[in-house]
Amino acid sequence: MRLISYIKDAQPGVGVMVDDTQFAALASAAPDLPDNLRDILALPDGLENIRKLVAGRSGDLSINDVECQPLIPESNAFWALALNFKTHIEETGLTTSKENPHIFMRHAKAQVGHGQPILAPPTEIGSAFDYEGELAVVIGRPGRHIPVDRAFDHIAGYTCCNEGSVRNYQEHNRQFGLGKNFEASGSLGPWLMTADELGDPSVQEVITRVNGVVRQRAPLDDMLFNVQQVIHYLSQGYTLQPGDIIAMGTPGALPPAPDDTLGIDLTQQYGRFKIPGLVHMRPGDTVEVEVTGLGVLSNPIIADQPLEYRAL
Amino acid sequence: MRLISYIKDAQPGVGVMVDDTQFAALASAAPDLPDNLRDILALPDGLENIRKLVAGRSGDLSINDVECQPLIPESNAFWALALNFKTHIEETGLTTSKENPHIFMRHAKAQVGHGQPILAPPTEIGSAFDYEGELAVVIGRPGRHIPVDRAFDHIAGYTCCNEGSVRNYQEHNRQFGLGKNFEASGSLGPWLMTADELGDPSVQEVITRVNGVVRQRAPLDDMLFNVQQVIHYLSQGYTLQPGDIIAMGTPGALPPAPDDTLGIDLTQQYGRFKIPGLVHMRPGDTVEVEVTGLGVLSNPIIADQPLEYRAL
Repeated sequence: MRLISYIKDAQPGVGVMVDDTQFAALASAAPDLPDNLRDILALPDGLENIRKLVAGRSGDLSINDVECQPLIPESNAFWALALNFKTHIEETGLTTSKENPHIFMRHAKAQVGHGQPILAPPTEIGSAFDYEGELAVVIGRPGRHIPVDRAFDHIAGYTCCNEGSVRNYQEHNRQFGLGKNFEASGSLGPWLMTADELGDPSVQEVITRVNGVVRQRAPLDDMLFNVQQVIHYLSQGYTLQPGDIIAMGTPGALPPAPDDTLGIDLTQQYGRFKIPGLVHMRPGDTVEVEVTGLGVLSNPIIADQPLEYRAL
Repeated sequence: MRLISYIKDAQPGVGVMVDDTQFAALASAAPDLPDNLRDILALPDGLENIRKLVAGRSGDLSINDVECQPLIPESNAFWALALNFKTHIEETGLTTSKENPHIFMRHAKAQVGHGQPILAPPTEIGSAFDYEGELAVVIGRPGRHIPVDRAFDHIAGYTCCNEGSVRNYQEHNRQFGLGKNFEASGSLGPWLMTADELGDPSVQEVITRVNGVVRQRAPLDDMLFNVQQVIHYLSQGYTLQPGDIIAMGTPGALPPAPDDTLGIDLTQQYGRFKIPGLVHMRPGDTVEVEVTGLGVLSNPIIADQPLEYRAL
C-alpha cells in the first residue's frame, strides 16, 4: 500500500494510491479518520483498517491534481544519519564512530513534498547547496529498547528523502545546526510505501539524478549502520513515535562519465570538498531521488527570495 | 503577562497568571481561542488580544492544581546553543567558532513542563546526566533575514530551560544526536513571560540549584552570542515560526563551597569532564532553573523505566 499526504483546496488529506497516479481519498473512503498520516499511524491498526476501507475502490484524484505534502508534515522528530555510507565517508575524509551511529536532527519545515520546489539559498548565503539521496524510514508502532530483531515490527514503511544541505553553514561550527535545517531545503516522498510491500530495504538501491544524470547510485546494504541497528540505538533513549522519520544517510558521488563536463569540472564546485561527479543544486535543476522498488521523489529547484528583511 | 500551558482533566489549555499561583483560564475568558500557545502566538495580535480579554479577571485555578506542559508542546523547532558561555567553554576545554553560534536541535518530547518529572536514564545507559540551566527565547512574529536591531520585535517572551544532557551519548559521535534528545530529559517553564514584562534579558542572571544548592549562577550578558545575534543568524536560513524555542546555552559550574563535599568529590563524577562544583542529576533530586525577574522552573528527577523492550 502506498499512502500520500496532500493539500487540495486548502484542505489537508491522506490518499491511497490505486495505480502510479490515481489515489483514493480517505476523506471519501473513511471520513472519520484523522486528516493526517501521523495521527492515522498512531491509531491501533490504522494501516490495516485503511487497507480494508479502500479495498476495491477506484481512484478519486490524480497525484498531479493535488499539492503533495512532505508526508508527515508535523512529525515529533526527524532523525538523520551523517556519514553512514562508506563511499561518503571516503569522499569527505571525515571521521565517524564505528560503534555508534552519527545522528542529527531536522525540523519539519526543512522539507517539502514531492513536486514542490526546493529553495536554493541566494549565492551570498551559500553556493554549495547539495542533494543527499536517502532512504527514509517512517515509524509506525511506538517502542523503547527495541531489539535489533524486532525493529521491523515498529516500521510503518519507507519513503525517499532528498536531505538537502547548505555546506558552508554546516561547517560554521562543530554541530551541523542551521546548515542541515534551511527552510524547504529538502524533500520527502512521493509516498509512504508500507513495509510489507517494500520488504527488506537493504536489497534495494538509492539513486539520485540531477537533470536526468545519475549522480549517486548505491546498494542500501552498503550502510555502516542498517535500519534495524539505528532503530535499536534511538530507542535506547526515546520511545520512537508514530510518524517519526529516520533518514538513513547518503552514499558518495558516482565518478563522472567521460563526456560529463559538468561532473568533471571541479572549478564549478564550492566549499571544502571538491569531488568528481558532485554537482550542486541550482535554480532551474530538477532533482530526483529514487529508491528502487519504492518510487521516485522529484523536485524542481528554485531560487529562494533575496536577502531582505521580511517580517510576516 | 505570564502565560502557562497546562492539562486539566485531559484537556489542554492556556492560562494567564494573575499572581504567582493563580491563573485565569483562557478556556473561560476566551473560549474561541486555540487551546495551545503555539497557535495563539500565530494569531495576529494574539498576545494583545489576550491582555484585553483577561484584564481585571481573577484566577480560576492554581498552577498547583494542573499539570504544566512544556510551554509549547509541539513547536516547529527547538533550537539550542552549545558552548555559548565563556565559563562553560573553559571548563570543558572544547572549541567553538567565534564567528558563528554553535547550533543543534531538540525534539518536542525531550522536554517536560514545570513540576513534571525529568527522567534519569538507568545507570547502564548513562550516569553523567547533567542539568544545563538556560534562558529560552520564545518566538512570536515570524521573520526572515532579521537585522540584529529588529530581533526583539520577533520575540513573544522568555522562559527557563533545563537542557538536560546525557553526556556519554552526546560523545558517541561528532554530532550530539541522541545525547541531547533523551525522552523527558529536560524541561521548559514555568511560564512564558512576555518580552515587555521581562525587558532586556541580558541584565538578568541564570541560576541552577540542585536540592537547594546553587550549582550555576551567571549574568546573561556573559554570552558569546546574544539573543539578537542568534535570531539574526537563524533567520538567514529559516523563517522563524511562532512558538519556536531558542535555548541560549548554559554557563559553567560554580566552584564548590568549602563544606560542599558532594561538589568537591570528583570521584562521584562520571564521563570525560570532571569539574569542581558539577554534580549529576540523580533520581530523588530536585533541580531548579531560575532566570531572575522571570521565575523558577522546578522538576523532580525520577528514574526512567528499566532497560526492557516495550512495544506500545
